[in-house]
Amino acid sequence: MSVVQLNQKPQAHPITVAYGDGIGPEIMEAVLKILAEARVPLNIDTIEVGQKFYEKGVTTGIPPAAWDSIRRTKVLLKAPITTPQGGGYKSLNVTMRKSLGLYANVRPCVSFHPYIKSMHANMNLVIIRENEEDLYAGIEYRQTHDAFQSVKMITRSGTERIMRYAFEYAVANGRKKVTCMSKDNIMKLTDGAFHDAFNRVAKDYPQIEADHYIIDIGSARIASKPHIFDVIVTENLYGDIISDIAAEVSGSVGLAGSSNIGANYAMFEAIHGSAPDIAGKDIANPSGLLHGAIMMCVHLGLAEEASKLHNAWLKTIEDGIHTVDIFNDMSKKKVGTKEFAQAVIDRLGQEPSTYRVVKYQKTHGSAASHAVMAEPKEKRELVGLDLFVRWVGTNVNDLGESLSALSTDALGLTMLSCKGLKVWPDIITEMDVTDRFRARFMPKSGITPTLKDVSDLLSRAADKGIDFLKIETLYTFDGKQGFSASQGE
Amino acid sequence: MSVVQLNQKPQAHPITVAYGDGIGPEIMEAVLKILAEARVPLNIDTIEVGQKFYEKGVTTGIPPAAWDSIRRTKVLLKAPITTPQGGGYKSLNVTMRKSLGLYANVRPCVSFHPYIKSMHANMNLVIIRENEEDLYAGIEYRQTHDAFQSVKMITRSGTERIMRYAFEYAVANGRKKVTCMSKDNIMKLTDGAFHDAFNRVAKDYPQIEADHYIIDIGSARIASKPHIFDVIVTENLYGDIISDIAAEVSGSVGLAGSSNIGANYAMFEAIHGSAPDIAGKDIANPSGLLHGAIMMCVHLGLAEEASKLHNAWLKTIEDGIHTVDIFNDMSKKKVGTKEFAQAVIDRLGQEPSTYRVVKYQKTHGSAASHAVMAEPKEKRELVGLDLFVRWVGTNVNDLGESLSALSTDALGLTMLSCKGLKVWPDIITEMDVTDRFRARFMPKSGITPTLKDVSDLLSRAADKGIDFLKIETLYTFDGKQGFSASQGE
Repeated sequence: MSVVQLNQKPQAHPITVAYGDGIGPEIMEAVLKILAEARVPLNIDTIEVGQKFYEKGVTTGIPPAAWDSIRRTKVLLKAPITTPQGGGYKSLNVTMRKSLGLYANVRPCVSFHPYIKSMHANMNLVIIRENEEDLYAGIEYRQTHDAFQSVKMITRSGTERIMRYAFEYAVANGRKKVTCMSKDNIMKLTDGAFHDAFNRVAKDYPQIEADHYIIDIGSARIASKPHIFDVIVTENLYGDIISDIAAEVSGSVGLAGSSNIGANYAMFEAIHGSAPDIAGKDIANPSGLLHGAIMMCVHLGLAEEASKLHNAWLKTIEDGIHTVDIFNDMSKKKVGTKEFAQAVIDRLGQEPSTYRVVKYQKTHGSAASHAVMAEPKEKRELVGLDLFVRWVGTNVNDLGESLSALSTDALGLTMLSCKGLKVWPDIITEMDVTDRFRARFMPKSGITPTLKDVSDLLSRAADKGIDFLKIETLYTFDGKQGFSASQGE
Repeated sequence: MSVVQLNQKPQAHPITVAYGDGIGPEIMEAVLKILAEARVPLNIDTIEVGQKFYEKGVTTGIPPAAWDSIRRTKVLLKAPITTPQGGGYKSLNVTMRKSLGLYANVRPCVSFHPYIKSMHANMNLVIIRENEEDLYAGIEYRQTHDAFQSVKMITRSGTERIMRYAFEYAVANGRKKVTCMSKDNIMKLTDGAFHDAFNRVAKDYPQIEADHYIIDIGSARIASKPHIFDVIVTENLYGDIISDIAAEVSGSVGLAGSSNIGANYAMFEAIHGSAPDIAGKDIANPSGLLHGAIMMCVHLGLAEEASKLHNAWLKTIEDGIHTVDIFNDMSKKKVGTKEFAQAVIDRLGQEPSTYRVVKYQKTHGSAASHAVMAEPKEKRELVGLDLFVRWVGTNVNDLGESLSALSTDALGLTMLSCKGLKVWPDIITEMDVTDRFRARFMPKSGITPTLKDVSDLLSRAADKGIDFLKIETLYTFDGKQGFSASQGE
C-alpha cells in the first residue's frame, strides 16, 4: 500500500482509492490527474482490492489492509471491479455496503442533450435507493417439494432514515420535490410502513414538494416522462429496477456516477463495469468515475472544487471532445482516455454555454444518520398464530379436521389458506393448490394467548405427526391488527 | 339478467358480458354491435356487477347471479368497473382472478406507428404475467414495533404451469421467442426456481428461442428497445411493473386489451379504466375492449372472425378515423364512440395496407392447464431451525448468551443475524440493527433433529421468557441446502 500525496496541505482530506480491474486503472489515473490539476486538497491512500485477491482465495476480494485504510479515511473512491463468476466469490460492492452500513445508494440520472444522444432532452433526476432491507436481505427457504419462500423485510427505523436522507439531500442540493414510490395498495403493511414514514418525514420539510407514485405507474413514467421527477426515494428492489430504467433512457449509462452513503462511511464510483475487453487500450471514458469523484468532493464539503470539475467536464462535452462510446454527429473530435482527461484539465475554470452552469453549495454533503428506533409506545399484544404445514391430499376438510384437533380456547383453528387465499371452512376458489397450507389459530373471545400456548400447540402438532414448516405469531399494536386477512376472508 | 341472443346458431358460443361502470356501457354497446355485424357466433348472457352492487353492500361487487352465469359460460367479456375507494371494498378483478383460478395475465403491447404516436415504431410484444403467487398473495406481518414482513411465495407447480402456458401461447400465435425475467442473482431459491422451471419447460419447445433477463436490465430494455422482445414471461410483481412500462412506451394504453386465463375460465377486457369523467358523452374509444373481444374470439377458436375484426380495426386506424384520445396530425376525421364503431363495421372484410395483415390460426386459444405437483422424489430432511426473536439491547453477546442456553445436541445455536447479515458470534458490520433478530440452530454432527426437537426448543424459549416471533424450519432436498446462508456467514 503506497501513500500518494497530492497537493498536500494541512486541510487535505484523507481518502482511500482503489484502482480496480479492467479499465479501472486507466480511468482512475485520468480522474486523479484531473483532481490534482484542479487542486482538490486530498490526501490519498491507495489500496488494492478485487480480481487479484479473489484469485488468491479472498472470497470478498478485500484484504485486511484495505479495510484498515477505509476505516481510517472513511471515504472510498473506487474504480470498477471484476467479480469472478461462481465459486463462492462475493460481490465486493455488496460486502462494502453491508459491512460499512452504506444504507443509501444515490444515483443521479441526467441527459446531456443535444451533445449526447438521449431519449429525453430534459432529464435530471436523482434516485435514492434504500440499500439494506427488502427482499435483498437474502432470507430464503425452500419449505416443501413445491413451495419456496423469500422474506421481504422493512423496518420503521431504516425507512425513516432513508426518508430523512432523501429530504436532506433535496435541501442541500437545491432540489424542489421528493417522490416516494411503493406498492402500498397491495403490500399494505410493509410498503404501507414505507409510505407512512415518507409522509411523516415530509412534514418536517414544508419547503420541499412531496408526492407518491405506485411503483408500476412510476416506472412507466420514468420511461416516458422522466422530466417530471426530481428526487425519487424507494425500496431496494424497486430502486434497482428504476435505476436501470432511468440510466438507460437518459442515454448516459457510461457517464454516470453513484454514491453509497452510511452514517460513518461513503463510497463513490462509476455505475458502469470494468469492461475487460477494452482494458489497456486508452479508449475508455473516465466520465462516470469523474462524476463519482465530483459527488465525493461535494460530500467532503469541497463545493467550489466540485463545481469547477463539473463545469469543465460540461464544457468539454459541449465542445464536442468525445470518447468513442459517446461519439455522434454532434462530436468534433474523437479522443482517448488521456486526451479526454487533458481536455477537461484545459477547461478547468471555464463554464459551459449551452448546458446550465453547475454551482454546488458548501453544505456538508453527508446528511447521513443512524437508524434510530422509536420508543415502543404502542401496546403490542399477542392475538393468534399462523401455523404453516406441508400437506398433500384431495379433500381439504381432512386437513381442517386434523388441525382442529390442536385447538384450545387460547388458540382455536379459524381458517386455512393456500397461496394467501382462504380454502377452509368455505371453499371459494377454483385455484390449484400447492403442498403448503396456512392454518390460522385465534383465541376464544375474552382470552389472551401466551407464547406458552404457542409452544404447547406446536408440541401437540409434533406429537400428532403434523408436518409443520413455520409459524408466525399474530400481534395487535394499540389494538390495530398487525397482520393481513386472507383473500376471501 | 337478460339474455340477448346475437346471431344465434346451434354452434354459437355461450359467453357472459358485463357492461361495467363509467364509459363501460357505451364501449360495450359499440363492441357488441361490431361483433354482431361481423357475425361472430355468440350466445350472450348479460350480468350486472360493479358500482351498483358495491353501493348495495356487496363487498366484491359481484352478486350470486353473476357467478352463476360465469360458471355456466366459462367466458367473461367485461367492461371497466369503478371500485369505490376505502371502506373494505374489494377489487372485482382480483376477486375474479382468485376465485376462478385465472393464473395467467396476457397483455399484448403493440405500437401503431405512424398513425398513432409512439416512442417506438416496431413494438409488438406480449407479457405473460403469473397471477396467483409472489408478494401479491398478501401474506404480511408486523412483527415488532420496528419490523414488518411480507412473504414472497413461489411454487414449482405454479411456475411450471405459467411457463408451459407462455410457450404454448408462443406456438399457437406464431411467436418466435420467449424471454423469462427474474432476479435470480439475488433471490437464488425463489427466482431461481422460477428460472429453473423456464429452462426445463423450454426444452420441450426447441422451435422457440428462449432467453433470460435480470428484471432490472429487462425493464430498462423494454423502455429503450422493446422491439427486441417477443413473448415475455415473468412473476406477478415484475409483470405488474413491466406491463405498465410496455403499455406506456407503446403509446397504446387506450387501445390495448388483456386476458386473464385459467384452466376452466377466462376473462377478457380493456386495460384502461372506467373514466367516469367522460362517461355518457359518446367520445370514449372502444378499441381496448374490442381488442379484448378479439382475444376472446381467438380463445373460442374463432380465428377467422378474430382476423376479420382485427384487420377492419387496423384499416380504420390507417384511414385516420380516430377518436379524440388518439387524434393527431396523421388523423383525418375525429369521431365519437358510435361513429368509430360504424367505421370498423364498414371495413369488415377489408385489410390494412400499411400495417401488416393479421391472420390468426385456428388453434384453440386456451392452452391453459392445471398446476400439477411433481412426484416428491427428492429426499427432504430436517436439518435445523431459524428462530426469530424480538430483542432490544446494546450488546448482541447478551442475546447470544441467552439463546445459547436453549441449545441441545439436536439444535445448537450457531449464528445470529439481523436484516440478513450475521451479527454473532463475529460482528462484521457497522449496520444499524432493528429489534428483530434471527437465531440459527443446527445439530451436532451425526445427529438428525426432529420436529419434536423444534417444539421442545420453543417450549424452553417460552419458559425462559424469550420473545420469539417466528420460526422457519430448515431442510435439505437430496442433500442440497433449502435455505440461504446469512450474508457474512
